[in-house]
Amino acid sequence: MVDNNAMQTVRDWVEETTTTPVITADGVKCPEHVGIVGLGLIGGSLALRLKAAGCKVTAWNHRTHPYSTARLAGIECTETLEELVEQQPDVLILCNPLVAMPKILQIIAPLINPEKTTLTDVGSVKGLVREQVKAAGMTDCYVGAHPMTGNERSGWQAADARLYDNALWALTYGDDTEYRRVVQVAGMITRGLNNGLIIIDDETHDRATSLISHMPHVVSTALINELTMSPDRNIATELSAGCWRDMTRVALTDPDRTCAMVVENSENVEVLLRSMAQRLNTIADALHNDDASAIHSFFTLGQPYRDFKAEQRNENNREETETVFTSLRIDPVHWREDFLRSAQHGEYIVRFTSGHHALAERHATLKA
Amino acid sequence: MVDNNAMQTVRDWVEETTTTPVITADGVKCPEHVGIVGLGLIGGSLALRLKAAGCKVTAWNHRTHPYSTARLAGIECTETLEELVEQQPDVLILCNPLVAMPKILQIIAPLINPEKTTLTDVGSVKGLVREQVKAAGMTDCYVGAHPMTGNERSGWQAADARLYDNALWALTYGDDTEYRRVVQVAGMITRGLNNGLIIIDDETHDRATSLISHMPHVVSTALINELTMSPDRNIATELSAGCWRDMTRVALTDPDRTCAMVVENSENVEVLLRSMAQRLNTIADALHNDDASAIHSFFTLGQPYRDFKAEQRNENNREETETVFTSLRIDPVHWREDFLRSAQHGEYIVRFTSGHHALAERHATLKA
Repeated sequence: MVDNNAMQTVRDWVEETTTTPVITADGVKCPEHVGIVGLGLIGGSLALRLKAAGCKVTAWNHRTHPYSTARLAGIECTETLEELVEQQPDVLILCNPLVAMPKILQIIAPLINPEKTTLTDVGSVKGLVREQVKAAGMTDCYVGAHPMTGNERSGWQAADARLYDNALWALTYGDDTEYRRVVQVAGMITRGLNNGLIIIDDETHDRATSLISHMPHVVSTALINELTMSPDRNIATELSAGCWRDMTRVALTDPDRTCAMVVENSENVEVLLRSMAQRLNTIADALHNDDASAIHSFFTLGQPYRDFKAEQRNENNREETETVFTSLRIDPVHWREDFLRSAQHGEYIVRFTSGHHALAERHATLKA
Repeated sequence: MVDNNAMQTVRDWVEETTTTPVITADGVKCPEHVGIVGLGLIGGSLALRLKAAGCKVTAWNHRTHPYSTARLAGIECTETLEELVEQQPDVLILCNPLVAMPKILQIIAPLINPEKTTLTDVGSVKGLVREQVKAAGMTDCYVGAHPMTGNERSGWQAADARLYDNALWALTYGDDTEYRRVVQVAGMITRGLNNGLIIIDDETHDRATSLISHMPHVVSTALINELTMSPDRNIATELSAGCWRDMTRVALTDPDRTCAMVVENSENVEVLLRSMAQRLNTIADALHNDDASAIHSFFTLGQPYRDFKAEQRNENNREETETVFTSLRIDPVHWREDFLRSAQHGEYIVRFTSGHHALAERHATLKA
């Protein structure tokens, strides 16, 4: 059921404005002109989807092979990165590999007009990128971003606007992030891409992604190492079924890419690996000692997560009209805390109805 | 391509026989009468599939609620376990939960006619079951078995003959296993179920299953424990994608069932958990020390497994006519070693063409 109070509030709010983002009676709009650096799977798909939504999209790629088909799709392509920056797009999105980031930031820094352009990126590690942006002197116009999407493929030939269907984004802030930049990028995500978002600090983002992605990638890799080194390896693979297949799927993806991702977030990953090792040794001890109570504790500790997943499944089975919306009023001073708390409470922002008001979907949360 | 030499050999062999299994010009047949103890997911599906293949199937279940629909499907049902055993089926398959095994073996032991009936089971841990069978004095007529199938459901209402489509079985032997029992059960698997099998010792089976199932179940559970205990739990779940979903799927299944499975194979699981903990601590150290060489080693150690999976994918993409068959001559004295070596070499037995000859499909193997 749509929250009628929330909708009423939307009508009350629409007159408010901020400086940069374009705000109409309909709320914060998608910026008119988006620049994209890197037409790989993530950047290429983004370009196609924004173009389809009516944006002007200009792109640069370090090799020109995507240009002919990109141009057919209505994406303007520049010969040089400099040329793209000098066009002063409203939002400039860095979709290049992280390894190329310092070099690219160096080219952009002297040319960007921060009054006109907000800088963002799609890297999977946010603390590192912010450091690099800071080193290049551009934090004043930067907002971190990370879309929760992707697949095993890569490159422009794999790009597809549908990659962003139902994607959730994390926008990230640091101590010196300007609020209006956040709203500007949020307008692109909610209106240009029709995606939801949460807004959190870099550190929380990097701890959370190490927990649900980077550390598990290492664990998956350790599993295939264990098998490879076992004299039972072939009989084990013959007897393997869904459990093994699912738990080792990510270890089959490009190990160089996984390695890079883990190294970029190594401090958080290290802490979690040591914690996991301790959990495994503790349950090994319990099995060794036939300690029924400790064994039982191990298998019940995660019950809140199982309950949460069951609740989430019920949520997904509900009719769409039952989605619960909530209205957020964002405090101009304490906006960081407001957004972080909202994300912790399972709220996905789906629209900025004014510069300081947002509509969010409420989702199930894990009560530990 | 079917191996013509192998087919020629089949024609040469068919006159050989052994005592118990029924052997015709077509090779070892499916036994005529199969008894099934326990009409849950595994036993019920087995009963339905054997019945569909033309077997006489008689079943007993500790509760009679499946009987009306089972009888409609042509499965005969007995009021007591004693009655089933006294019918002297050619093969009696224990599909009851492992926890009920000692009690059930106690009832069967005084009634079974080992000259007529071969005893087998479908338990996921083989060493423990053999000990229990030994304690009940029935090792002379027992062969261990474990079908690689199952799903998240349970009970007769979930039973479906298709559960065994393309299933691979492990048959297991101990020091005193009679060869003819192995051939008898293999006849049922290959001809009654149209499944393949490997034949290995209990210890190898239990080490291999702890490697690809029991230990990974514990690791998956440790992952959801890690998340549940993290203050970042909700933001982490919001940012989670395919990696996390796949690696924690088995932790969402019934924790009591997982716990029981792990405890039944605790010695093997303990060893592997300690090894995994060491791997995780080692890579944590490497990340801490920024040790590029150690990090690289960790991510490349499992490359033979990645290569094997790529080879296996190619194999699955080939036309069916390209399946490579090999003919096995089983030494009457050294049959244990012959079967184990065959399994280690990626061979799935699909037919006993005589009492001492088998046809096997050759599959890709992992070269470490």
